[in-house]
Amino acid sequence: MTTRWDQSVLREPRTGLVLDLTDAPRWTGDSCEAALSAMAAIEGGAVANIDEQRQVGHYWLRAPELAPDPSQTAAIRDAWARIDALDTDGFDHVLWIGIGGSALGPQLLAGCLAGPAEPTLSFLDNTDPEGFARTLGGLKPASTRVVVVSKSGGTVETRNAMLAAQAHWARAGVRFGPCAIAITGEGSRLHLEATHAADPWRAVLPVWDWVGGRTSVTGPVGLTLMKLMGWDWKALVAGAAAADVATRSRGEDNPALALARAWHTAGNGRGDRALVVLPYRDRLHLVGRYLQQLIMESIGKRTDRTGAVVHQGLTVYGNKGSTDQHAFVQQVRDGRDDCFVHFVETTAQGPRIASDGGTFADDHLLGFLLGTRAALRQAQRPSLTLRLPDTSARSLGALIALFERATGLYAELVGINAYDQPGVEAGKLAAKGALSALSTVAQALAAEGQTAGQLARALDLDAVLVWRLLEQLAATGRSQVVKGKRPAEDRYSTP
Amino acid sequence: MTTRWDQSVLREPRTGLVLDLTDAPRWTGDSCEAALSAMAAIEGGAVANIDEQRQVGHYWLRAPELAPDPSQTAAIRDAWARIDALDTDGFDHVLWIGIGGSALGPQLLAGCLAGPAEPTLSFLDNTDPEGFARTLGGLKPASTRVVVVSKSGGTVETRNAMLAAQAHWARAGVRFGPCAIAITGEGSRLHLEATHAADPWRAVLPVWDWVGGRTSVTGPVGLTLMKLMGWDWKALVAGAAAADVATRSRGEDNPALALARAWHTAGNGRGDRALVVLPYRDRLHLVGRYLQQLIMESIGKRTDRTGAVVHQGLTVYGNKGSTDQHAFVQQVRDGRDDCFVHFVETTAQGPRIASDGGTFADDHLLGFLLGTRAALRQAQRPSLTLRLPDTSARSLGALIALFERATGLYAELVGINAYDQPGVEAGKLAAKGALSALSTVAQALAAEGQTAGQLARALDLDAVLVWRLLEQLAATGRSQVVKGKRPAEDRYSTP
Repeated sequence: MTTRWDQSVLREPRTGLVLDLTDAPRWTGDSCEAALSAMAAIEGGAVANIDEQRQVGHYWLRAPELAPDPSQTAAIRDAWARIDALDTDGFDHVLWIGIGGSALGPQLLAGCLAGPAEPTLSFLDNTDPEGFARTLGGLKPASTRVVVVSKSGGTVETRNAMLAAQAHWARAGVRFGPCAIAITGEGSRLHLEATHAADPWRAVLPVWDWVGGRTSVTGPVGLTLMKLMGWDWKALVAGAAAADVATRSRGEDNPALALARAWHTAGNGRGDRALVVLPYRDRLHLVGRYLQQLIMESIGKRTDRTGAVVHQGLTVYGNKGSTDQHAFVQQVRDGRDDCFVHFVETTAQGPRIASDGGTFADDHLLGFLLGTRAALRQAQRPSLTLRLPDTSARSLGALIALFERATGLYAELVGINAYDQPGVEAGKLAAKGALSALSTVAQALAAEGQTAGQLARALDLDAVLVWRLLEQLAATGRSQVVKGKRPAEDRYSTP
Repeated sequence: MTTRWDQSVLREPRTGLVLDLTDAPRWTGDSCEAALSAMAAIEGGAVANIDEQRQVGHYWLRAPELAPDPSQTAAIRDAWARIDALDTDGFDHVLWIGIGGSALGPQLLAGCLAGPAEPTLSFLDNTDPEGFARTLGGLKPASTRVVVVSKSGGTVETRNAMLAAQAHWARAGVRFGPCAIAITGEGSRLHLEATHAADPWRAVLPVWDWVGGRTSVTGPVGLTLMKLMGWDWKALVAGAAAADVATRSRGEDNPALALARAWHTAGNGRGDRALVVLPYRDRLHLVGRYLQQLIMESIGKRTDRTGAVVHQGLTVYGNKGSTDQHAFVQQVRDGRDDCFVHFVETTAQGPRIASDGGTFADDHLLGFLLGTRAALRQAQRPSLTLRLPDTSARSLGALIALFERATGLYAELVGINAYDQPGVEAGKLAAKGALSALSTVAQALAAEGQTAGQLARALDLDAVLVWRLLEQLAATGRSQVVKGKRPAEDRYSTP
């Protein structure tokens, strides 16, 4: 045993983060100067998102003075002032409408920070009418503040949810505008509606094109929620800012670089190991889901920056410890050797709640973490442990910024653009095609029953697709159906 | 285009399930007679869980008459009668205490079936004191029904949560027993406490040693929750029973066999592709997490039944569509080619909620599913689509039973015991070791400060472990600490 037993343990003084890499694979590559320089260039205003020709400025959200253009600095500070001026009286419920980065960040905050004293909170983050009905069912418009978040202002799921909410408000005879806040890009459709003289909304806050959805939580998206809920949004920003300072370091003390290197080594630079995120804290139960979006959407790319097809990726999943020990940790320890467990824990261990024989609940929680870590070591499976001071807004801000930077650095190490999402766009386009086919099929129905095969031939569409669309028409009263023995024999006609 | 375009679409008449394998890899193996026979033997009462010398009888929970021993049949029917006789008045909140299979199944049910009219529901499924405090904080003992679930009766997390709840009841001056229901094995510690004359609990319901936690939801664990919440537990059982009948088939019409074969083909019998579960329904958002436990804990095994080291596994993750399209589907389509997407949807599309231009929210939901499916096909990525009639208890029961059977069949195809979890046991043992080390370290503290390295040498323990334990003692007032520049220089003494 060396006297430097702690050489694998990094204690970062500004944030209080402790990163224990004792059981993680060792980096044997170079000093990563190029990656660090690329990150510095991004922070300096380089157009890092080449495909969309955009700057990448989520770091400025925590330090507006670093933004390359004074108008950006002023815009962030102005948004802060307007968020701080938001009215927090007159509602006991917040309805949050958004999807992807416009929902996951706020959900992470709520999971971590919510307590019994604040307004209650619900989300519409989909275009599921059952979900709309369930959430809106028990909701009292007059005492609810609604926030609608869409950078483009045209996100379909968000728009549908907003229309459902507006219909609910109308049924209750309550004006929507005075209850509603929009967070959207300047000049978007949502922006126009929210500022329309007929029913102007209570507030409109900005999202800028240099902030991606998956890195928007330390900007107006997250801060607006925090203000409405009474949580310390300045602490979130301060924690992220502190982590930004720490992770700009070009030395071995940079925890984000240590993370990116560990990911690279563990997964051979190809993501051969999934990051299994196990926060041993109920309040942190959405960290895995949040990082799943941040990392997988950033790293999961077909081509690298040279255009070569690389099919990169870094899979992330996990819920919480010790709960997941009773779920899937069996496979992580004994099964396929394709995981890299990230234990996440806190120094502060919460209230001391007595268990049997002079032990306490938090000792057991730590014991399970250490036990699982030991069991993984025994099986020669890699892990790392990240410790936060506590579950405060400040610590959460530091955690978010740490992983944002690690994701950016890792993307530089493997040479990809972490800031676009072309696969998502492809899916959206194809969805439009499916909706258009639904309408085509509906129009092709006749009084006489036709099979999916017949209609598919007539319309030059895929028969399985046509059958599914016919089923949708039948389920929603837009078609009659006489079921056959097999799907190919079902006959559909006008209702 | 063949006239048999629907040969890749399986419509199961008893359950209404539709399994569309058009975009899934084709099975080219044998007829799987051995796997089907093994499943028949399990249902007949074979000791399928060799390691623990137990029968595997979750199928009997839906058809008690099939249990090999009349006493088992009688026990299931007796439990049904006692569940049906449970009092559903006098409470407006249910507090559910359990972990792993004792929590995930109930959480799946609640996610799917909860509405605004029922009692509210909260879970303690961990040993996190912050989580205990947050959940118990706003809870009114006099109007709460508590259910404590532990097969062994000694699950540490569950016991700690129960002790925390009992302390909360005591502080409120409310007797715990009359509010509480235990679900546990005969003669367990929990069973003894719940039947103790000093404060007998309202009810004690059984879990049998032939039901594993991850397959317990159609037994007393799930049904008790359903009865208390006013949900149709008989429909859940009936749906599962119908799927059991359908999935006993030895023909090509067996949807569970089709699933198991597709998993095997897609992952080369080694789980080379993760199952990415995307239910396009808010109510089904926990299906992925539920299947994560069911499948990963069952399939993630070090050895096969011959004792050969195989490191099997079948990774499962996913939340819901279309939400996840805005999170990680980018990687699934463009990144690493290691996924097998399972779209899950329903025929009934819920209330019709108007969107723009004559479209409806549910049409968009279907459009996004079909669009993503098309985008995956375009990228030559496999997927399958499972359609349920609706999100009713009956359909949920069928879904659960379908995947239980598919998991059992897959385990037979790869030759492993799906019913033990030795890796979980290893973690529990190691956790005991960590707790014992915590106590050892606490006792070794002296008035004079010592470093972790010094204590580790003196106690012959790992220095990083000792430092973490010292940090725990310091955070909880059981040690003083003077921090040095590096962790190795921190000095700990008695408080």
